[in-house]
Amino acid sequence: MKKHNFSAGPSILPRVVLEQASKAILNFNNLDLSLIEISHRSADFVAVMEKAQQLTLNLLGLENKGYSVLFLQGGASLEFLMVPYNLMKENGKAAYIDTGVWSSKAIKEAKLLGNVETVASSKDKNYSYIPKNFSIPQDAEYVHCTSNNTIFGTQIKTFPKTDMPLVCDMSSDIFSRVLDFSQFDLIYAGAQKNMGPAGTTLVVVKDEILGKTGRTIPSMLDYQVHINSESMYNTPSVFAVYVSMLTLQWLKDLGGLAAIEKMNNAKAKLLYDEIDTNPNFKGTAAIEDRSHMNVTFLIEDTEKAASFDKLCKEAGISGIKGHRSVGGYRASIYNAMPLESVQALVDIMKKI
Amino acid sequence: MKKHNFSAGPSILPRVVLEQASKAILNFNNLDLSLIEISHRSADFVAVMEKAQQLTLNLLGLENKGYSVLFLQGGASLEFLMVPYNLMKENGKAAYIDTGVWSSKAIKEAKLLGNVETVASSKDKNYSYIPKNFSIPQDAEYVHCTSNNTIFGTQIKTFPKTDMPLVCDMSSDIFSRVLDFSQFDLIYAGAQKNMGPAGTTLVVVKDEILGKTGRTIPSMLDYQVHINSESMYNTPSVFAVYVSMLTLQWLKDLGGLAAIEKMNNAKAKLLYDEIDTNPNFKGTAAIEDRSHMNVTFLIEDTEKAASFDKLCKEAGISGIKGHRSVGGYRASIYNAMPLESVQALVDIMKKI
Ligand SMILES: Cc1ncc(COP(=O)(O)O)c(C=O)c1O
Ligand SMILES: Cc1ncc(COP(=O)(O)O)c(C=O)c1O
Ligand SMILES: [Mg+2]
Ligand SMILES: [Mg+2]
Ligand SMILES: [Mg+2]
Ligand SMILES: [Mg+2]
Repeated sequence: MKKHNFSAGPSILPRVVLEQASKAILNFNNLDLSLIEISHRSADFVAVMEKAQQLTLNLLGLENKGYSVLFLQGGASLEFLMVPYNLMKENGKAAYIDTGVWSSKAIKEAKLLGNVETVASSKDKNYSYIPKNFSIPQDAEYVHCTSNNTIFGTQIKTFPKTDMPLVCDMSSDIFSRVLDFSQFDLIYAGAQKNMGPAGTTLVVVKDEILGKTGRTIPSMLDYQVHINSESMYNTPSVFAVYVSMLTLQWLKDLGGLAAIEKMNNAKAKLLYDEIDTNPNFKGTAAIEDRSHMNVTFLIEDTEKAASFDKLCKEAGISGIKGHRSVGGYRASIYNAMPLESVQALVDIMKKI
Repeated sequence: MKKHNFSAGPSILPRVVLEQASKAILNFNNLDLSLIEISHRSADFVAVMEKAQQLTLNLLGLENKGYSVLFLQGGASLEFLMVPYNLMKENGKAAYIDTGVWSSKAIKEAKLLGNVETVASSKDKNYSYIPKNFSIPQDAEYVHCTSNNTIFGTQIKTFPKTDMPLVCDMSSDIFSRVLDFSQFDLIYAGAQKNMGPAGTTLVVVKDEILGKTGRTIPSMLDYQVHINSESMYNTPSVFAVYVSMLTLQWLKDLGGLAAIEKMNNAKAKLLYDEIDTNPNFKGTAAIEDRSHMNVTFLIEDTEKAASFDKLCKEAGISGIKGHRSVGGYRASIYNAMPLESVQALVDIMKKI
């Protein structure tokens, strides 16, 4: 049965990528060896790593602008710790924008290393909007934000203007839209939404912001150590990097961020229009802050919810249960999600 | 062409495991979804994680003995940091046995957190032997050793007897032989030798040794945080955990550690016997400390080396170049390596 996979992460990947990955497990590059049993220092894998790095810079428009690309382990959650370790002086200060569970987890780890000023928060309304019009203290060493709030279905459309290094957790919307990525000094993202399988984390960092804290940083937490070794300081997550490279190549072949943004906008419009016009459904996020990746909504009538669930199941729709902190539904419509799958969901909504 | 893959890591995996993994990328558990696009919190993946944990305890003979099993990200290299963070008091002391590059990297990270006493080292002879007859200071908080030295081809046969928590980096020989694993209080191992693909790290820890340092530990570095969330504090490296589970099941079906130890001994004997009887080859490790996983040897005559290289290439033998710090050759003969591949190598050695 054809499935429509709305999972929030790990999540849908392009079919052609899955097919290539499946083959590489048996025989990679016609080596008569599996991708996962060759040395990460072999020429064949080093080429994969380099290509993944080049594609990243190319897609983000950051080639020759002083950025390094890393594929690390640990997930975005380890970045919550690595960011302050690398950017915050002992007893230094950082400014964080609190737009959801992931922002607040980032804040929690940063507090272990210095002073964190939460310059804005939407916690007062269960993170249903993006705070605007806040000011950033002049003595902060960096500003941290979360571009897309996977759980709450909100997305930052305009980023803070600041002279300080701007750090962004883009785990759930990287590579989904055109932005001036040079406004960021450090971007990180767990692979398992728009980029690949779980197991690798992308970090794009402007070299000049590193090495300024005076801290002794443990090797595995030190971006400069990983940069110096081209993401091979220790054994990288070979399979996850390979599949990410394939996905980035797929995206480039499709036309890059401009092309995918158009498709993502069309999918989001289709779904939000139905939520807005259908009296049985209600969006949970402030309209101007709605995410084009994670669409959160409620059905207030519990009987209708039961029949919606049943119809979804029959249609092969999976992964749309909302996160417990919001309830209701969450349809994640990442890059690899085709319009037809969103249409399949909307068709069911129309029957409610 | 049939390849004989002697790579030191990532390294050979059982063919049946590769076939199952390749299929799961396209359709996992007949869900009509890929293994790598479903939620890590789905019942299907939670079952994989639990099975991997159970198989680990079962194979090591540690069921119901107060141990927890974790599958983390970061590689064994991140464990070099996590071990002292979790076990060493502020300004505390730990005893390390220095048997190679990996031990000394572990020592380097531990020194960032406290006092490290290197109680024994074989650095004086380029790590070609395992030091014996050393004493451990009574005020150490734990003792750290490396069971198998992947680069230098040595292996600890008898472990230090101590009342302190005994920690062991088993990255390159875990699941390869019968040991009383209950003598260890914490075992860790990057998956990419005997267990699976790169991207996950096994940690087996005796619960009672945790929580005694008084330190505030960053969430991602805190074993207790990961234990409380059953290795799902954040998104685990789904594919690497799945393939590890398959490999552990393969090992169990084969007869477990007693069965694989017999096979590993036979492979090692075949190769070391040839090294010892053939005048063209010379082993680099002290005979009583020789590794049954990584067999390091030299050819002193450079012309003979060239013809050996040529014959190896023609026979499909790959991955036997020695590490630069030893030179010569290293044949890694991990669990999944069949006797026939070792025989193929020995056949060539006989021609030299
Ligand atoms: C925005 C965001 N940040 C961070 C994370 C945590 O990522 P990981 O599980 O890779 O640590 C997630 C996971 O869903 C996320 O959506
Ligand atoms: C004994 C030993 N310890 C640690 C490591 C480092 O492992 P990782 O690359 O997973 O960090 C290795 C890698 O080969 C190893 O052989
Ligand atoms: Mg700026
Ligand atoms: Mg409505
Ligand atoms: Mg003991
Ligand atoms: Mg000899």
